[in-house]
Amino acid sequence: MFERQWWLSLVFFAMFFTGCDQTKKVKWTIQSPDTNISLSFEVNEQGLYYQAAYKEQQVVSPSKLGFLLTDMPAMKEGFQVLDYSLKSVDETWELPWGEKREIQNNYSELIVELKETEGLYRQLNLVFRVFNDGIGFRYIFPEQQNLTDFIIADELTEINLTADYDSWSVQAYQPDRYEYLYEKHRLSELKDTVHTPLTMVNKSNGLALSVHEANLTDYASMTLYTEGSTKLKCDLVPWANGVKVYAKTPFDTPWRTIQIADKATELITSDLILNLNEPCQLDDIDWIKPAKYIGIWWEMHIDKSTWGPGPRHGANTANVKKYMDFAADNGFQGVLVEGWNEGWDGPWWQNGDVFSFTKPYPDFDIAEITTYGQSKGVGLIGHHETGAGVSNYESQLDDAMAFYNQHGVAYVKTGYVNGEGMNKKEWHHSQYGVRHYRKVAEVAAKNKIMICAHEPIKATGIRRTFPNMMTREGARGQEFNAWGPDGGNPPNHEPTLVFTRMLAGPMDFTPGIFDISLPSKANNQVNTTLAKQLALYVTLYSPLQMAADLPENYENQPAFQFIKDVVVDWDDTKALNGEVGEFVTIARKDRNSENWFLGSLTNEKSRDLHIDLSFLDKGKKYKAEIYADGVDAHFKKNPLSINIYNRLVTSETAMDIYLAEGGGAAIFFKLIED
Amino acid sequence: MFERQWWLSLVFFAMFFTGCDQTKKVKWTIQSPDTNISLSFEVNEQGLYYQAAYKEQQVVSPSKLGFLLTDMPAMKEGFQVLDYSLKSVDETWELPWGEKREIQNNYSELIVELKETEGLYRQLNLVFRVFNDGIGFRYIFPEQQNLTDFIIADELTEINLTADYDSWSVQAYQPDRYEYLYEKHRLSELKDTVHTPLTMVNKSNGLALSVHEANLTDYASMTLYTEGSTKLKCDLVPWANGVKVYAKTPFDTPWRTIQIADKATELITSDLILNLNEPCQLDDIDWIKPAKYIGIWWEMHIDKSTWGPGPRHGANTANVKKYMDFAADNGFQGVLVEGWNEGWDGPWWQNGDVFSFTKPYPDFDIAEITTYGQSKGVGLIGHHETGAGVSNYESQLDDAMAFYNQHGVAYVKTGYVNGEGMNKKEWHHSQYGVRHYRKVAEVAAKNKIMICAHEPIKATGIRRTFPNMMTREGARGQEFNAWGPDGGNPPNHEPTLVFTRMLAGPMDFTPGIFDISLPSKANNQVNTTLAKQLALYVTLYSPLQMAADLPENYENQPAFQFIKDVVVDWDDTKALNGEVGEFVTIARKDRNSENWFLGSLTNEKSRDLHIDLSFLDKGKKYKAEIYADGVDAHFKKNPLSINIYNRLVTSETAMDIYLAEGGGAAIFFKLIED
Repeated sequence: MFERQWWLSLVFFAMFFTGCDQTKKVKWTIQSPDTNISLSFEVNEQGLYYQAAYKEQQVVSPSKLGFLLTDMPAMKEGFQVLDYSLKSVDETWELPWGEKREIQNNYSELIVELKETEGLYRQLNLVFRVFNDGIGFRYIFPEQQNLTDFIIADELTEINLTADYDSWSVQAYQPDRYEYLYEKHRLSELKDTVHTPLTMVNKSNGLALSVHEANLTDYASMTLYTEGSTKLKCDLVPWANGVKVYAKTPFDTPWRTIQIADKATELITSDLILNLNEPCQLDDIDWIKPAKYIGIWWEMHIDKSTWGPGPRHGANTANVKKYMDFAADNGFQGVLVEGWNEGWDGPWWQNGDVFSFTKPYPDFDIAEITTYGQSKGVGLIGHHETGAGVSNYESQLDDAMAFYNQHGVAYVKTGYVNGEGMNKKEWHHSQYGVRHYRKVAEVAAKNKIMICAHEPIKATGIRRTFPNMMTREGARGQEFNAWGPDGGNPPNHEPTLVFTRMLAGPMDFTPGIFDISLPSKANNQVNTTLAKQLALYVTLYSPLQMAADLPENYENQPAFQFIKDVVVDWDDTKALNGEVGEFVTIARKDRNSENWFLGSLTNEKSRDLHIDLSFLDKGKKYKAEIYADGVDAHFKKNPLSINIYNRLVTSETAMDIYLAEGGGAAIFFKLIED
Repeated sequence: MFERQWWLSLVFFAMFFTGCDQTKKVKWTIQSPDTNISLSFEVNEQGLYYQAAYKEQQVVSPSKLGFLLTDMPAMKEGFQVLDYSLKSVDETWELPWGEKREIQNNYSELIVELKETEGLYRQLNLVFRVFNDGIGFRYIFPEQQNLTDFIIADELTEINLTADYDSWSVQAYQPDRYEYLYEKHRLSELKDTVHTPLTMVNKSNGLALSVHEANLTDYASMTLYTEGSTKLKCDLVPWANGVKVYAKTPFDTPWRTIQIADKATELITSDLILNLNEPCQLDDIDWIKPAKYIGIWWEMHIDKSTWGPGPRHGANTANVKKYMDFAADNGFQGVLVEGWNEGWDGPWWQNGDVFSFTKPYPDFDIAEITTYGQSKGVGLIGHHETGAGVSNYESQLDDAMAFYNQHGVAYVKTGYVNGEGMNKKEWHHSQYGVRHYRKVAEVAAKNKIMICAHEPIKATGIRRTFPNMMTREGARGQEFNAWGPDGGNPPNHEPTLVFTRMLAGPMDFTPGIFDISLPSKANNQVNTTLAKQLALYVTLYSPLQMAADLPENYENQPAFQFIKDVVVDWDDTKALNGEVGEFVTIARKDRNSENWFLGSLTNEKSRDLHIDLSFLDKGKKYKAEIYADGVDAHFKKNPLSINIYNRLVTSETAMDIYLAEGGGAAIFFKLIED
């Protein structure tokens, strides 16, 4: 098998000697295991170029590679080939938690070792991997005499696309990190530099691409711009001083990734990003467990209580115990509490230098709370809001994690709210930010703490290497419905997220708001139907999934049963249908039972979906517990109209599901034991 | 049109002169308007015979007609033909309330006038009508010199069937009138004399028959027996003195009817019985209105209160007002109150000579109650329990109806509970009973009172002539679930009723019990699912339809919405599927809107039904509000498991409906106005 694939994947290797001595052009072509994708890398007089084709149609035309370095010549041309190697890999590895259990890592690889033909004779290697679902490549700076410590001034990587795709993106270099609505633009009309993942669809044939990066470790985040063309160019997020990356050989860049699919839904289940990350580095991961949680959090967003101390301080012992009671009664593993520690007074997002991570407010008795929680089997979920005061946080980081560890706290939510950046100067997505977020994951791991990061660095698959890096925000979440501009997240937001933000990894969207009208908010409401809130638990994957509303808003609500039933760790995932920003349906199988769940959601348009249940295990019978929009449901006019019913189904069944305007559907397929 | 049908329907008329003078055999054959049914009547030396065929297969082989008279020679042979006439009718008339608005009366008719050839020269005429859905015939005794007052000792009518049908019947001559479970027997194995309607199905081809009578006026009820054959013979229910019928010329018998259909569901929508009744005899019928009601009734059945006076007397003013409040809040037009009047002390069914129909118990202030009800738009529904003391009742009848009329009571439920018969001697179904029930309808009409008769004479279509004769019991109703033997009505009871009892006319079954487990009853429960209780409102037609449970059992019950929505007067009715005693689905269109309702129910077997909604009006959209059994519903184990949901449908939609064991489904198709 291995041998056969090896030969299949290597299609072409040619070396042309043209004209006079030393002038040469070398080109390799490798193919994906299924032969659909072919990638060529060429070294010629002009420099380093790669190109890619899908099903014999060119998708990426010759695109430049290389670097500008500070106080040194660029590394982009004048190379000779020292060596090259080819291999084919087909292995399967297991995710400790995630959207599926087993991940196939199946690719063809080309490594080319280059050395400058004159001057400093610096070395640069390129690694290309071609999977069935896309390509990845990275630069390797080997250890070498004339390149030790160096500064990257610019990465010259291009992705020179052959069509003017529709794209959905969030503008980079904005104060609120990723928390903007995705904008749809033709590539040629993209004015801004944008974050990755950048999802693109070719309107004429449906071909879908996502450009992102994998294993972003000690490097700057890649952003992209087009300058009015269909050529994406890499722009690295700099330090405050303008440096892009401080590097020291031996040094590897993150992987640059281009996922390619016949249709956008196939991007959802691509494992390319995880496959391009390093295996788990933690020895013991038994303590790492997905969980459902509630929290003292939404009540601050709807102005029922405050983060800071005062008469309506939410994080008080009695209130936490009330939440813990509800959690225990309803099967939640944790209670998040925000505003528990010193530093929240006044405009707290300016308090980056003030926060203490070991000093609770007097009305928050952490010992009493955690003891009470342990007696009920409910954990306290810790919270570290830094106000992006990273120096202050890092100075306390060991103590902060140890403090929680001593109190038996297993999960910590972090936060980096500050419009001026980390330490009021560094971009969250700079190499500075990348280093910080990684450090937090590492210190947390030492303290057996799992992290849910808000205002995070984007996900690039690090969870494979640090499985305690569970989930993160990194987009407009539910909270924007409470106080966001223009009345909150519009209905097309979630069916956009599934095809954009979610391609990077799990998101702590905080679904499950039942009191949709938000009586305390004059200009806002949740812009979904109730059924769509349930659908979010399946469509927006997170191993930590919140039931975000107040406990009292779940009482006597039949729809709450779905939140109690839904799981957060999956054996398999299927994306059944969908279009970016329009609608999507995802089915997932529980990792700890034979049950399946399905979530489906739409934008502002109502839809009748016909869903084939052939994903269900053959020959089994299921009780489908269905939560779907009522005929008269509408995200604005009648969001609470919900149908809750069940039916017997098998893999032979096809279901008709109606999604209302701004609506959704959630289904629990419960195996019927014979 | 008229002329054409006339000729089509008359197929054959032959007169054979055989052998010597005066010996003759005369035979007529007429056909139904669609020519499917042909009926022949023959006068020959042996007597009077008719036979019938359906689609060219003989269904009734030659069957005898005639009478035995008391103290006179029989009238069964020795006739000559005086005259005959033939005609064809196609007219449409309107039911003031009912299962449909317009009824087509389309038949071919043969009238043969006979006279004895010797002796008393008595005259006897026969009228035959052949409809597309069956045949009817009656005997007419014209005014004549030698036959004035006479006594019928036996009616010799036979129905000599050509196959050994499965039949479903209730044994006649039992103390509790019709209130027995229907028994299924081959005709040849029918041991008992049974009531009509007698429903029969030919197992080999599905052909369905119902033998009954129409317009039972001043005559004895017809019952049937087979004596081990497939020949049904008429047995008239006698007076206590053995007389069958006291008659006086001119005199017509009721119509003997044989409904014929390709399948049993077609019997459900046959109008033959109504077509063979006389048009409305009341001048003003504006006051006659179908209604939904509740009542102080079930609480006595489940031993919460008592009919008789005492500390738990149900019919007290405060309790009635409480029910009236609930009725007003939920759109019910009336509140039935039983046990309000003197006579209920002790074993009240023995108090036939005691009941007063104008003397309320002291705790029942009828003036206060009816005034209160009027202020809320809710009527008191009166009650006359006679204990079958018919003499006592008739002696008070004018006063009793006037009393209620004076208090604005528009509906009266009557009752005739007594195992020993009327006045402890007469059968309810005797000519005595028939006369009494008719008298009550007439006196009630004079007082603008509508009647709901319990322990009634069977329905034979009199509601056409007296539209104030709204509904009646005449079978085991819901009450048997509360205290009936063997734990109540088994699940096959209702899908049997639809094809048997219901062919006679509306039934006051009293559906809508939500507290199905009946905690106060150790050995009984309601043997249906909750959804099946709702389905009864559509499947068991009554123009007076009760929500039988206690008001408190409807509180906070989402399923109660269907009872509030369902109507009781229909523009049209479709029987969509079904088999006797197995399952049935009926759709009906509201007479006062464009909405439709559907009810479906099953016996102890669960079923998946695929229902084509082509009955819905073309080009219209409906919100289908569906109340269906949960997947894990079961009439014994889990009766309350119900799915309540809605979907958008049109006449193009097909729906899959699951009926649980002992389950059902109810759907409200609400027109969506554009």
